[in-house]
Amino acid sequence: MLKAIKRGFASDNNAGIHPEVLKAISKANTGHVIGYGDDVYTEEAICTIKEHFGQDIDVYFVFNGTGANVLGMKAVTESYNSIICAETAHINVDECGAPEKFTGCKLLPIPTENGKISVEQIKYHMHGFDFEHHSQPKVISITQSTELGTVYTLTEIMEITQFAHENNILVHMDGARLCNAVVSLHTNFKEISNDAGVDVLSFGLTKNGGMNAEAVIFFNKKLSDDFKYYRKQGMQLASKMRYMAVQFTALLRNELWLKNSRHANRMAQILAERVADIPQITITQKVEANGIFAIIPKEIISRLQERFFFYIWNEERSEVRWMTSFDTTEEDIDEFIKQLKSLLKK
Amino acid sequence: MLKAIKRGFASDNNAGIHPEVLKAISKANTGHVIGYGDDVYTEEAICTIKEHFGQDIDVYFVFNGTGANVLGMKAVTESYNSIICAETAHINVDECGAPEKFTGCKLLPIPTENGKISVEQIKYHMHGFDFEHHSQPKVISITQSTELGTVYTLTEIMEITQFAHENNILVHMDGARLCNAVVSLHTNFKEISNDAGVDVLSFGLTKNGGMNAEAVIFFNKKLSDDFKYYRKQGMQLASKMRYMAVQFTALLRNELWLKNSRHANRMAQILAERVADIPQITITQKVEANGIFAIIPKEIISRLQERFFFYIWNEERSEVRWMTSFDTTEEDIDEFIKQLKSLLKK
Amino acid sequence: MLKAIKRGFASDNNAGIHPEVLKAISKANTGHVIGYGDDVYTEEAICTIKEHFGQDIDVYFVFNGTGANVLGMKAVTESYNSIICAETAHINVDECGAPEKFTGCKLLPIPTENGKISVEQIKYHMHGFDFEHHSQPKVISITQSTELGTVYTLTEIMEITQFAHENNILVHMDGARLCNAVVSLHTNFKEISNDAGVDVLSFGLTKNGGMNAEAVIFFNKKLSDDFKYYRKQGMQLASKMRYMAVQFTALLRNELWLKNSRHANRMAQILAERVADIPQITITQKVEANGIFAIIPKEIISRLQERFFFYIWNEERSEVRWMTSFDTTEEDIDEFIKQLKSLLKK
Amino acid sequence: MLKAIKRGFASDNNAGIHPEVLKAISKANTGHVIGYGDDVYTEEAICTIKEHFGQDIDVYFVFNGTGANVLGMKAVTESYNSIICAETAHINVDECGAPEKFTGCKLLPIPTENGKISVEQIKYHMHGFDFEHHSQPKVISITQSTELGTVYTLTEIMEITQFAHENNILVHMDGARLCNAVVSLHTNFKEISNDAGVDVLSFGLTKNGGMNAEAVIFFNKKLSDDFKYYRKQGMQLASKMRYMAVQFTALLRNELWLKNSRHANRMAQILAERVADIPQITITQKVEANGIFAIIPKEIISRLQERFFFYIWNEERSEVRWMTSFDTTEEDIDEFIKQLKSLLKK
Repeated sequence: MLKAIKRGFASDNNAGIHPEVLKAISKANTGHVIGYGDDVYTEEAICTIKEHFGQDIDVYFVFNGTGANVLGMKAVTESYNSIICAETAHINVDECGAPEKFTGCKLLPIPTENGKISVEQIKYHMHGFDFEHHSQPKVISITQSTELGTVYTLTEIMEITQFAHENNILVHMDGARLCNAVVSLHTNFKEISNDAGVDVLSFGLTKNGGMNAEAVIFFNKKLSDDFKYYRKQGMQLASKMRYMAVQFTALLRNELWLKNSRHANRMAQILAERVADIPQITITQKVEANGIFAIIPKEIISRLQERFFFYIWNEERSEVRWMTSFDTTEEDIDEFIKQLKSLLKK
Repeated sequence: MLKAIKRGFASDNNAGIHPEVLKAISKANTGHVIGYGDDVYTEEAICTIKEHFGQDIDVYFVFNGTGANVLGMKAVTESYNSIICAETAHINVDECGAPEKFTGCKLLPIPTENGKISVEQIKYHMHGFDFEHHSQPKVISITQSTELGTVYTLTEIMEITQFAHENNILVHMDGARLCNAVVSLHTNFKEISNDAGVDVLSFGLTKNGGMNAEAVIFFNKKLSDDFKYYRKQGMQLASKMRYMAVQFTALLRNELWLKNSRHANRMAQILAERVADIPQITITQKVEANGIFAIIPKEIISRLQERFFFYIWNEERSEVRWMTSFDTTEEDIDEFIKQLKSLLKK
Repeated sequence: MLKAIKRGFASDNNAGIHPEVLKAISKANTGHVIGYGDDVYTEEAICTIKEHFGQDIDVYFVFNGTGANVLGMKAVTESYNSIICAETAHINVDECGAPEKFTGCKLLPIPTENGKISVEQIKYHMHGFDFEHHSQPKVISITQSTELGTVYTLTEIMEITQFAHENNILVHMDGARLCNAVVSLHTNFKEISNDAGVDVLSFGLTKNGGMNAEAVIFFNKKLSDDFKYYRKQGMQLASKMRYMAVQFTALLRNELWLKNSRHANRMAQILAERVADIPQITITQKVEANGIFAIIPKEIISRLQERFFFYIWNEERSEVRWMTSFDTTEEDIDEFIKQLKSLLKK
Repeated sequence: MLKAIKRGFASDNNAGIHPEVLKAISKANTGHVIGYGDDVYTEEAICTIKEHFGQDIDVYFVFNGTGANVLGMKAVTESYNSIICAETAHINVDECGAPEKFTGCKLLPIPTENGKISVEQIKYHMHGFDFEHHSQPKVISITQSTELGTVYTLTEIMEITQFAHENNILVHMDGARLCNAVVSLHTNFKEISNDAGVDVLSFGLTKNGGMNAEAVIFFNKKLSDDFKYYRKQGMQLASKMRYMAVQFTALLRNELWLKNSRHANRMAQILAERVADIPQITITQKVEANGIFAIIPKEIISRLQERFFFYIWNEERSEVRWMTSFDTTEEDIDEFIKQLKSLLKK
């Protein structure tokens, strides 16, 4: 029944689990351990994360990216606060209002061309302080790499964190695809988050070959005092935590995460180069991580989707999104380009 | 480092994953599938669940038991409603206020001797209808098997569901250990839930050998119209859903769930029989599923915990809880009894 | 149409506004003042309140008692906290779940005989600290005078506040009828709240002859840092605040509050004495403030209600509640007793 | 102390209560009536409102405009919905996130030039239907007259309501200044709301000479089934309701509301005409109701504020807001213009 499995570029979460991750899960599957994270596997995973992000941090595992984002922001806000973000941010358009529901906060979206927000744009929302009629700005949330496949430079991030801290505002980073950004910038985890002044990070490895590997990382440990309660009350505390924990260890040890995201990014570059040659196609965003956004002829979209998974990003503009992942192959791209060209000829 | 792994009776979630579950996960780990449940594995799992619970139902997978309970109740309540439950219910004492936070409802706890509530007790809270000052009772939540290791008979459940429906109230069942109750009652899933008049079920297989296998099942499909939105907004929608889904299929096919819970229940019986002989120990609840509650001499508790995981249930009364699981062995019990007796001798 | 106005003992909020209050409103009705409390009338009212409760406090006016209770508790809790109170507390049975909805907290009710809770009873809920599965107890809420017409002694309150503070818990007092308690105890406002260790007070004068005069008073000013935002977000910030403020000034100046509550309490005593003589009637609670609870023959209730407003408290026990207020007259009582006796004769 | 009372143009809520309103309150202050709205005054007020808005409607009184807006929207949404509104809407910028906190919904703001939104602009947010990752649009909220002193024409409203209903969306109108719009359009209450297809109306008379006179009106009675519970749970149910109710009766009887808003609008016209002559001042919005927005030389603002209350609307642009009210006098305007001109000369 499942013989001819369709592959595609719909999302990096359509890919499976990396074999090493599965191996780690299997290896952890022995004997009894205390539930809810009080076990050696979780301890080991946290140690491993600290090696990458710095020792003086707090780490909590959660089920998914929405959980990481919402709980991370809840930890640093009161319900009368507001959260500034790009209009395209996952927290703004892809979480069904989970941030508003759980935090009570208002989201203040900023329209962007490329998914990145700047200090200049942020300033638009920086008013009404101390005025009780107005939601009080408290968090700037940025996504790295962005939902549009672009990447904040280190300088851009530091401009935001510096501005934020000068104004008593905190910075949350949605790092569901942080690995791809680290590769793109030739940097490391610590430099792009902890050292860059980020306060709270949603760190995701699910899209990097994990099964369900998401964490909230606090670089200022004072901010996480209550977090264990919010995680539980937010329905995000796993009983058999060890299986979540070992995914982090497996991916962060031996540079597996690096191999995976380097590969995904490279596949995106190759795909981008291949379509760049096709005159009927216009790439709309810089390809800096593992996503390609392109305007393609409307009439071929559904035909192309018959063979390959991918999403329409903007129906009106006939803009589509192609994501690559750790398991994308050059053959996938070859076939895709072949099919694309063949459809365009007709 | 992890050589001498400590085993114990702390919780059925301290056990690992059943090897068949791991095999199923591994088998599903091939190629790309659409995320968030639009895949053949999820479809197959839902079909399998329908074979056990009835065809005309709605099934949604979520991350954990708290998520299943809270979202299941949210689906059938408004914030001005109240939820009647046993004082010992997981929703009342073990979810850090997640039900109140997400549903806005008031919980109306009923003190019980054995974790089970009766229609007579429920009536205490059945007042204030149509009176806007009073939270309006809307849901009765029962746990099967209960947090105290007891089991509602079919008749007891039907008395509650009939009473509820006569009063325009719905019945939620927390079935984190439903398998153990089904074994205990020599019944089947459908008879004890769907046929017995339950409206919404939290169905858990995590404690039965799954990794993270929890579902919300609606026996009245009208109640689940909005559920997909609540699941997403409740941060309980998994991207790589297939790995969650196959756990259900693995455990519900070939009666693996039955084998696992039968074993756990049998181990509880054996353990209960063995301690029943010990004069210094008093079993405090009927052992009807996979939990044993017992009063033991205070002075041996910490010594015993050095060798075996288990929890103190009631410090004052020196009452402890021992849970058995699919991987409890007779050797575990032998050793435990040996150690217990040795400590009592001193 | 409104000629023969029915009077009664239904609630102290069925009474009108004291003429002095109306006069104060009228006097304030001149010229323009800044809205939302930044005006001289509000300033004057707060000064007056400070004369009664102590200088080093924070005072905020809100619309009603539910608003005062909920926002006062919100200011000192996080959503993962729990609030301990009498089962009969207004916050538990008469606010339609507003505390749960707005604070996210769990309410932990204590069954009582007389509406008062004791340290011994409170201890039942003092567990699960630092355990993330359990809502963390943070507030003890007591009502003074209680919903059952009884009054905590100063000693009883101080036992609770001392116990609370030793356990890092705060004490909220629902003082919708605080005036009646002050009269009953021959004390003053400051002694029974601020000096007794209460942290947050809902102070109500609506039932004392006000129109809508409710305040949240913080005796520890650190607790009110965010309160102005919660009041606004809680929909409790009045635009034309001056009319609310002058009610406090009018009632607290020249001992009008004292006259009013002394009168109400005295009327309750007289009514109690008069019914004490009637053998078919049993008074069920000590009459310490302005409420009388009594078991009366079921068959006369509706007939009596034809002439006088009052509520059935407990249908099963045929227990009713009679409240007196600042405008209850001895004639009201005479007529009531006459009617009562006449109905009992039949 | 209060001798030389400063007057001004800060807000229509800086004005006092109309003497007729005070008289009505005084007249209602006799005898006992049942609390919480079950009284003849409330009944009469609702009847009066029905004479103006249509018979087949449901009316509920609440404390303030924020309460009316938030509860009106709560009644017709689930937490996974979104609410489309102008970026300048009171619900978006002046309620401290109360809509998000109480409804759980996402607000989707539309930038506007003049405070009015159009169907074309609304369409931008009309996507993601049936897609669980996306908050589901459910309500369009418009303000009449707007926060910028402009007025939707009947046609503009009907375009929105028709579009909304075709798309299974409801329309909420924030009518805190509905009276001013009715005067401006030479229409009546029913035509501009009920007949125009509005589903839920926040109807305010506080700014028209009331003390605290706000109502939620449902033109489709099915939508208000649960409203009484939300009002109570939302802390918006007044105990001494009669004093709120009679304000409606007083203002809606004998065309007092009409006189008041006609006057306020006329004062705005006069003020606008007077400043139109001053070359250094630019009026930035059409003066269609009782507000004037103008850019004035930055250097005179604080000096002018010494004598007259008013707010800076946009600091950067040196734009101020002047509101007129039922008690604004031509003398107020004369003095204001005199002072303005005198300051400009320096």
